[in-house]
Amino acid sequence: MTFRATILTLYPEMFPGHLGLSLAGKALERGQWSIDPLQIRDFAEDRHRTVDDTPAGGGAGMVLKPDILARAIDHVSSDDPRPRLLMSPRGRPLTQKRVRELAAGEGVVIVCGRFEGVDQRVIDARELEEVSIGDYILSGGEPAALTLLDAVVRILPGVMGNALSGTHESFEEGLLEYPHYTRPQIFEGRDIPAVLTSGNHAEIDKWRHRQALELTRERRPDLLAEDDQPVTK
Amino acid sequence: MTFRATILTLYPEMFPGHLGLSLAGKALERGQWSIDPLQIRDFAEDRHRTVDDTPAGGGAGMVLKPDILARAIDHVSSDDPRPRLLMSPRGRPLTQKRVRELAAGEGVVIVCGRFEGVDQRVIDARELEEVSIGDYILSGGEPAALTLLDAVVRILPGVMGNALSGTHESFEEGLLEYPHYTRPQIFEGRDIPAVLTSGNHAEIDKWRHRQALELTRERRPDLLAEDDQPVTK
Repeated sequence: MTFRATILTLYPEMFPGHLGLSLAGKALERGQWSIDPLQIRDFAEDRHRTVDDTPAGGGAGMVLKPDILARAIDHVSSDDPRPRLLMSPRGRPLTQKRVRELAAGEGVVIVCGRFEGVDQRVIDARELEEVSIGDYILSGGEPAALTLLDAVVRILPGVMGNALSGTHESFEEGLLEYPHYTRPQIFEGRDIPAVLTSGNHAEIDKWRHRQALELTRERRPDLLAEDDQPVTK
Repeated sequence: MTFRATILTLYPEMFPGHLGLSLAGKALERGQWSIDPLQIRDFAEDRHRTVDDTPAGGGAGMVLKPDILARAIDHVSSDDPRPRLLMSPRGRPLTQKRVRELAAGEGVVIVCGRFEGVDQRVIDARELEEVSIGDYILSGGEPAALTLLDAVVRILPGVMGNALSGTHESFEEGLLEYPHYTRPQIFEGRDIPAVLTSGNHAEIDKWRHRQALELTRERRPDLLAEDDQPVTK
């Protein structure tokens, strides 16, 4: 089964973007996943192909019209089991857990908003899952969709091959990753920590876990609070 | 003063990517900001242009060598006041506040990691600011750098023109944004909330604030906890 991403956007030319290069791009060429950007404007029915209108109740910006977006969504995803995401800073924060769930499925339909926002009624009526990639504001949903897809495609079977196998990663154990070192042994007077070149693998594991725990405590106490009791090796 | 972004990467061809299109792309053409991707590999000195080596202490993946990265950083940013960022899931989470600070400065130097990670000694020696765009793992720093730059470029003076002025946004007041509605008045049997078409602007403001507060309570209680007392209008 191939993972299929369908993107509803006003900027189809932004896709596949960086996902057309490097390992994701090679996997795309091999047909291990697919991406299909659709122009929302094609579902407008007036001759100006208007997709937005002023917000009810006043205020700046423009709002994507519900009827046009509903037609676009129905065109791609009625009778389609793929989750329908709306990239939005109002959404639930994306986690690596959700990335893994998405990668295990058949694909995604992603709606990219622009302007001030999207009419709430189409979000409700089409049960769009609002997803946020972080607490900052982007020019639109497109950069967010590309980022989410990068995270998902990276873990699809066969995409990264051995590059991924056995690697420890941030968030995998609820902790940030321990620091890395490689040759040269001395860089600008700074040594590689002695334990790492000791050959004592039990000590190395212990040191790495302690480093990860300390770094997480310092930078992301919120991650520890969620778990309460991180596993101590 | 033009905002200048210099990117150290193994995939310079990923830039400007989607930032070359839409409003960011037009601003780039007008010279309102600039982007300069540099190939890290060009700073390797062996004939294979090796940039990585196995991790000290063992484990999967490869680590970017500190000496080569230091040379690349020194080439672009010795005697350069721009902040030096390293995109990394271990970093401090990017916020709209940090985006605004960056946009108010002269630019950024962004190091994009690939492989397992970057030697900790060059992070320390060159005082790289580790920045995370969210709690998920990407194929490398490049999609993260493009996302961060999208957020920054969007608010540079003149880039979005009037499109931005006066808009309310998620996080601006520590709350997620209230829901939007536009014509048609009835969509699939769903009405625009009556208050929004009442013409009573005080009531509209109150309704929107209440909606924003409720949505934030439901989806992101963490945002309210940070602030303790959100301003009630």
